[in-house]
Amino acid sequence: MASDDTNEPLLLRSQDTVAQKAKGRLNQRRLLRSRSAPHTDHAPLVINDKESIPLSETIFGNLHPSFKKVAIILMVYLGVGTLIFYLVRNQIKGMKTERFLDALYFTIVTMTTVGYGDLVPNSDLTKLLACAFVFSGMALMGLILSKAADYLVEKQEVLLIKAMHMRQKVGPSEILKELEINKTRYKFFLVFLLLLILVIVGTIFLVNVEKLEVIDAFYCVCSTITTLGYGDKSFSTQAGRIFAVFWILTGTICLAQFFLYMAELNTESRQKALVNWVLTRKMTNYDLEAADLDEDGTVGAAEFVIYKLKEMGKISQEDITLVMKEFEELDIDQSGTLSVSDITLAQSS
Amino acid sequence: MASDDTNEPLLLRSQDTVAQKAKGRLNQRRLLRSRSAPHTDHAPLVINDKESIPLSETIFGNLHPSFKKVAIILMVYLGVGTLIFYLVRNQIKGMKTERFLDALYFTIVTMTTVGYGDLVPNSDLTKLLACAFVFSGMALMGLILSKAADYLVEKQEVLLIKAMHMRQKVGPSEILKELEINKTRYKFFLVFLLLLILVIVGTIFLVNVEKLEVIDAFYCVCSTITTLGYGDKSFSTQAGRIFAVFWILTGTICLAQFFLYMAELNTESRQKALVNWVLTRKMTNYDLEAADLDEDGTVGAAEFVIYKLKEMGKISQEDITLVMKEFEELDIDQSGTLSVSDITLAQSS
Repeated sequence: MASDDTNEPLLLRSQDTVAQKAKGRLNQRRLLRSRSAPHTDHAPLVINDKESIPLSETIFGNLHPSFKKVAIILMVYLGVGTLIFYLVRNQIKGMKTERFLDALYFTIVTMTTVGYGDLVPNSDLTKLLACAFVFSGMALMGLILSKAADYLVEKQEVLLIKAMHMRQKVGPSEILKELEINKTRYKFFLVFLLLLILVIVGTIFLVNVEKLEVIDAFYCVCSTITTLGYGDKSFSTQAGRIFAVFWILTGTICLAQFFLYMAELNTESRQKALVNWVLTRKMTNYDLEAADLDEDGTVGAAEFVIYKLKEMGKISQEDITLVMKEFEELDIDQSGTLSVSDITLAQSS
Repeated sequence: MASDDTNEPLLLRSQDTVAQKAKGRLNQRRLLRSRSAPHTDHAPLVINDKESIPLSETIFGNLHPSFKKVAIILMVYLGVGTLIFYLVRNQIKGMKTERFLDALYFTIVTMTTVGYGDLVPNSDLTKLLACAFVFSGMALMGLILSKAADYLVEKQEVLLIKAMHMRQKVGPSEILKELEINKTRYKFFLVFLLLLILVIVGTIFLVNVEKLEVIDAFYCVCSTITTLGYGDKSFSTQAGRIFAVFWILTGTICLAQFFLYMAELNTESRQKALVNWVLTRKMTNYDLEAADLDEDGTVGAAEFVIYKLKEMGKISQEDITLVMKEFEELDIDQSGTLSVSDITLAQSS
């Protein structure tokens, strides 16, 4: 994410929007130095070994599991769970259908913490196994939650862009920009839609296959996706449990994601209110002095950006201090600015 | 948060650490302008109406509910829940003790999505009521999760500081600094400790009061705090349910918070790896040009900070663009910097 756009000059977009106003001034400044080649053609003078490996692989590779990895972990979890609970099936009591299916169903009901209680451990061994599986299941659900829905939503976004592109004559880049601005709202509505579909499908299924009353079916659906699982209504037929295996997993994740997006929307609106307050409040002499990072009596563009972003809470004093230490070290000729001479000095030393 | 430290000069701490090195240079620069009074005595020239009200009240007051507000919401939720389920107690079947206690116990078991099933709704009305209470309960649990544990941990931190202060001869500010650096790790261990205590207390209670075997008691504890709630073991006595009302609420929140801190620790270590990479990689001529915000051929301290923080992913191009627009508007004399003359011009217009 970070490495994507740092290769462009920092002020690219800002210059576009205030181009009319600032053009004369910028052109004047550009005369002070020659831009002999476009940015992308500049060959770095110092080539670091680390830079030849993509950043994403070196840092995120091991620590940040991809969607594919999460899917594999889920498969392994369900496979091991099903096998173990299949082997100890005689130590589990309750409403039983097909042996292998029941083991998978029990693993899913435990992992998602729905815990109907239509199948319950009946020995010390199975009780402790259930404890182990519910804790690891919770961790796994958290992992899925941080990956699966985003993946789903991004897929949906591409479809949405295509659909809008066909109807209107706006370029996909414009729609992407629009999506970026309202991203959280889009995600929220997409997940809400998916949740609605899952609730309706679940209710219809329970009425038709498990032969429940409509209210009972809806009650069972709510009880399941919230992981409440009183257990008075659950999936008791073989067909029901095949359906349940897929439906419970998607339903519980979908509802949790719905609540997460709701919180995100709330945080965003709060952040926007703060940003708005910081940007609209008037600058005072006092602010001017506080923002004057290099203490030359005036506040440059970069100093202003840092001051305002700090006020918005987007960056902290710790962040600034950390980078400033690095700056002091790089500023070998102690001129207060970094220039080509500093880099040449660094290379020669 | 944001307004706390913006009133200090941005480079205060950095200057302290590199004081020896940069002292001569800074003193030289200070001569260029007179500092007639300390920062705090500077009276703002422009007094905005909004500024007389504390930022925290104007912005966070309505949008960001405080711990106290969350506690009130919880009380209202439990009060309304208990009253309603007390009134419809004849439409709830299962293992019953004292009528009022059962209604409260049922509300808690539903709200936390534990859902043992030892008490289950027995009519369409109570089923729909349970649905309503589990959804609102989930939202409320999310709200509590974002508040309660932090409050608890901060209380604990103060105690920790006091304890360390008495033993060693280091100032509390130093311990606070130490705590700030390893904050997430401290939080994680504190919640883990609390969780351990809750598990042990719960198990002992279930063995002694509910007369369960040790394994069964532990199994019931795990089944409860994970909100699994199979329901084959639950609180069936009056004393048990009084205990359960408090224990279930703290236990489920504590475990959820434990998982949240674990995720936070993981994110932080990833972030640290990225920050480290950004700070240790060598600057090139190419970086120099990209970081040169005002295009004067050299990179000042503030420009360097922005470039590096952007590379770390802490700030985005959107953040910078937004503030830059504001800067262009404030820079009335179009000098490329903000000075006292800009503010005077802004006041007169």
